[in-house]
Amino acid sequence: MDEIAADPTHPRYQSLLLRHRLEEAEKKGMLAGSAMIAHGRGEAYDYLLGEQTIPSALQATKAALAALRGASQPVLSLNGNVVALAGKEMLQLAAVLECPVEINIFYRTPERMEALLSHLEVIKSSEGIDVQILGAEPNAKIPGLEGPRANCTKEGILDSDVIMVPLEDGDRCEALVSMGKTVIVIDLNPLSRSAKMGNITIVDELTRVVQNMLDLLSQPMQGNGGPFYDNEAGLTDALRHISKKFSAPDA
Amino acid sequence: MDEIAADPTHPRYQSLLLRHRLEEAEKKGMLAGSAMIAHGRGEAYDYLLGEQTIPSALQATKAALAALRGASQPVLSLNGNVVALAGKEMLQLAAVLECPVEINIFYRTPERMEALLSHLEVIKSSEGIDVQILGAEPNAKIPGLEGPRANCTKEGILDSDVIMVPLEDGDRCEALVSMGKTVIVIDLNPLSRSAKMGNITIVDELTRVVQNMLDLLSQPMQGNGGPFYDNEAGLTDALRHISKKFSAPDA
Repeated sequence: MDEIAADPTHPRYQSLLLRHRLEEAEKKGMLAGSAMIAHGRGEAYDYLLGEQTIPSALQATKAALAALRGASQPVLSLNGNVVALAGKEMLQLAAVLECPVEINIFYRTPERMEALLSHLEVIKSSEGIDVQILGAEPNAKIPGLEGPRANCTKEGILDSDVIMVPLEDGDRCEALVSMGKTVIVIDLNPLSRSAKMGNITIVDELTRVVQNMLDLLSQPMQGNGGPFYDNEAGLTDALRHISKKFSAPDA
Repeated sequence: MDEIAADPTHPRYQSLLLRHRLEEAEKKGMLAGSAMIAHGRGEAYDYLLGEQTIPSALQATKAALAALRGASQPVLSLNGNVVALAGKEMLQLAAVLECPVEINIFYRTPERMEALLSHLEVIKSSEGIDVQILGAEPNAKIPGLEGPRANCTKEGILDSDVIMVPLEDGDRCEALVSMGKTVIVIDLNPLSRSAKMGNITIVDELTRVVQNMLDLLSQPMQGNGGPFYDNEAGLTDALRHISKKFSAPDA
């Protein structure tokens, strides 16, 4: 990483930067064993998307923002990879949206929770961001899930009406949808269960999505968007985009 | 892993088994930092292939075997992920083909080389496989590459006429092709530089390929295959196969 850290014009800069963040997070004990493999799968899909925000993904991003802004109790759910890749930006986003974040990890251990919480607390104080970080003391369960992965907080995930779950597991995504929440998914694989389960699925790379959201929020809003978002149309467009890559690989 | 190790009928058994092998290899210091991410990329492409050997991949596998059997100095090149995922099977294959294997890693350190060599030596003696393992003492360079990644042995890679490089980096693949060798590539991404550079590219998952080769070698051979293999046709077929996944995702 070191040799390219100083050179953002390097063609692989962004990709290497994200890997570097994951490696640092792994050293701090923030990640599950499967985190790197999951990131690699994401890299493959992002390559197929051309490592860019395609128009339908931007449209989904706008719909997601409208849903978050129109919510009465929005929450941003963070897992290990999300904190590692975009911890600061997620806190900034929560600050603008005036909503809490909740750490909600699939492989929950006290050590990982502690590593993630302290990482976010450091960012919060060094950046002067005022956001409530939930998840340390779960006091509720997500119905339909078993074991520690059901744990959540009542004031955060349980009572939320709109929840954004980046890089989420399919089972948990389904459980949240079953609770009647509006579920915003960020997932690079348009064929994944999470992508299909979500109410608004953004088929795009996490750090680009969060940056797009922060950029959009810094501009005057052009309406709140309609209440209905056609998720299937968005997924179909992403599939079409990827499919083009395979039928015209040199394009 | 433990809960599924005893249950090969688990739908994710094969995938979890491979992850388990990588985790064990990581603990032994056999892998580069990017190994898990690379494996994740492979998982994504294998998912798109339907986690199966498609007919054109089997054809490429047969052509590769014919090339290896017809070679005067064949060699199997092994990197960290290959040793971790299919070390034993690669040694078995080399034994049947009566050729050496050569450890040839992109991020070469004495520690990694030692970890890989001793892992293979343990397999060799416990399984009673008689194969020459090259790479410990490089005495030649692959022209066109810089630094430690050019290192190889004269009796192995340098003087080989047919070389199999599973999961190989594009630059090194290109350098080997430039040397005039017949280069057999195993790569799940039909769009990768290695896939395009190779003379015979098998778009399939490594452990399936090696098992297919061992199965084919245990049967009476039906001729040696022609001298010409149409790699572009094979890649196009793999692309078509993946593309179908995106145009008919529920199929």
